Amino acid sequence: MDDLISARERIKGMIRQTPLFRSSRINDMLGAEVFFKAENLQKAGAFKSRGAVNAVFQLPPREASRGVCTHSSGNHAQALARAAALRGIPAHIVMPRTAPTVKINAVKEYGGRIYFCQPTLKDREKELHKVMARTKAVPIHPYNDPRVIAGQSTMAQEIKEQLPKEPHYIICPVGGGGLVSGTALAVNYFFDHTQVIAAEPLGANDAYQSFIQKKFIPQTNPQTIADGLLTSLGSITFPVLVNMVSQVVCVQDHSILKAMTTIWERLKLVIEPSGAVPLAALLEGKVNMKNKTIVVVISGGNMDMSSLNNI
Amino acid sequence: MDDLISARERIKGMIRQTPLFRSSRINDMLGAEVFFKAENLQKAGAFKSRGAVNAVFQLPPREASRGVCTHSSGNHAQALARAAALRGIPAHIVMPRTAPTVKINAVKEYGGRIYFCQPTLKDREKELHKVMARTKAVPIHPYNDPRVIAGQSTMAQEIKEQLPKEPHYIICPVGGGGLVSGTALAVNYFFDHTQVIAAEPLGANDAYQSFIQKKFIPQTNPQTIADGLLTSLGSITFPVLVNMVSQVVCVQDHSILKAMTTIWERLKLVIEPSGAVPLAALLEGKVNMKNKTIVVVISGGNMDMSSLNNI
Repeated sequence: MDDLISARERIKGMIRQTPLFRSSRINDMLGAEVFFKAENLQKAGAFKSRGAVNAVFQLPPREASRGVCTHSSGNHAQALARAAALRGIPAHIVMPRTAPTVKINAVKEYGGRIYFCQPTLKDREKELHKVMARTKAVPIHPYNDPRVIAGQSTMAQEIKEQLPKEPHYIICPVGGGGLVSGTALAVNYFFDHTQVIAAEPLGANDAYQSFIQKKFIPQTNPQTIADGLLTSLGSITFPVLVNMVSQVVCVQDHSILKAMTTIWERLKLVIEPSGAVPLAALLEGKVNMKNKTIVVVISGGNMDMSSLNNI
Repeated sequence: MDDLISARERIKGMIRQTPLFRSSRINDMLGAEVFFKAENLQKAGAFKSRGAVNAVFQLPPREASRGVCTHSSGNHAQALARAAALRGIPAHIVMPRTAPTVKINAVKEYGGRIYFCQPTLKDREKELHKVMARTKAVPIHPYNDPRVIAGQSTMAQEIKEQLPKEPHYIICPVGGGGLVSGTALAVNYFFDHTQVIAAEPLGANDAYQSFIQKKFIPQTNPQTIADGLLTSLGSITFPVLVNMVSQVVCVQDHSILKAMTTIWERLKLVIEPSGAVPLAALLEGKVNMKNKTIVVVISGGNMDMSSLNNI
């Protein structure tokens, strides 16, 4: 609990308190009161900035001076590059050659040093180890790190203050489980009645499998347009998910697309497919929502516009 | 001046005070301090709601009871349907058969009664006259109406309160001239130093021509992706433009597209091409912007998502 409160204090001023949006027409359509937590408007375009800033600013000065590193093709790469720039230390980012130009450019703009590798987990890890050996930079894991999870918890802490009363549910997308773990911990410590629900693409449903079997099932061969949710749970996020989340629901890709365009059209917010997964769960009726108050987390907005033609 | 102040009072609670957004990276790119007035987040997705609500709520009860009508394929149609629904009166909307399904559906959702016609100005006007003859509904012009212009002026009145000090410029897109006239009037009455700049697609530059020749030049055969800016100025908006706007600048369609994707990617806001025209003017260097504070008006966000594949 103290770690969560300290995280909020630590990152204040370096991340954005994101607004909640609502749409009468979406509420009418669903028969519920839905608030959208717009983490697509977060610094660097996703909630990942919270965890990255919290981790980077907890490093002791001597360690920090060596810089930080990670392998990521996605939002963690940008978030870590930005957090490192704020602290004035180097960020070494291993990225697959196949990463979208827009994401590569974003990392560069935040001053990150990029190391390209083949787009396999093995090659990413190999290249990261080379970078670590050469630079002595501190690796910051995208989700399986208590400092990162405490950072992500600040989103739910904000929600608590933004709403006049507690929602029945907060629905988060789940990939590696950093966001949902941070949210579940915050709800555990700071909320009385709210339940946390994790929403996952059917084509990458390792969290669902892990949750119902109560044993860690790794993600293999994921097939979904939600490109931010392809990873396995971690050793820290798995037990939090199993013990503190009420429900894990799976959604189909066509519902994710429907949810994404609904948010674009109704809320005028650019979101990435992964950020549409919680609304997709409502559209599919996977959650008992009648007359409920629900916070749907729009986790990010880093959409590669050139990919639109392929959808 | 009184009309402008009354408009603000009248429509309060029925329209949204839209936020200002900024992006450090856009500021760095332009060498200016730019605020984006997010009218894409306005009710019914565009600034048009301001004028429509102000007009509809000024009708005397007997007149109002006959309902309102207009011909429009765009944002005025939705805004008027919504305003009429708020007042509990009918809205009769003449729309070309070729209007995008998403706009037709939006008018229907607000309870507007739709009359389809051929997609020519002549047929639109003919059909509107038939509707007026049959229903006695009051026509509300999309821009050439003092009540509508006073409604649009409320946007600049908000800007005045939202910024700690006056911007050097407010840049509006110009089509029929309702928004830019309302803004110029508000700036005239409530600001000390701010200049109003109108930005227009080169392929529909009747306002530019009218401005430099100081005589009304109608729009003929417009060619631009900014589908909200195809109309001519009106008899009321033309003199306001000539006398109260500092500069009219023209931009190319490829800059409009660039500005649109910049706003999508950087601000994570869905905007329509017309709403990107002011930023396009900055990208083209058409405005002396070095170290200036500039408000760029994002006029609307009603984008037909299915059209994205054609861009």
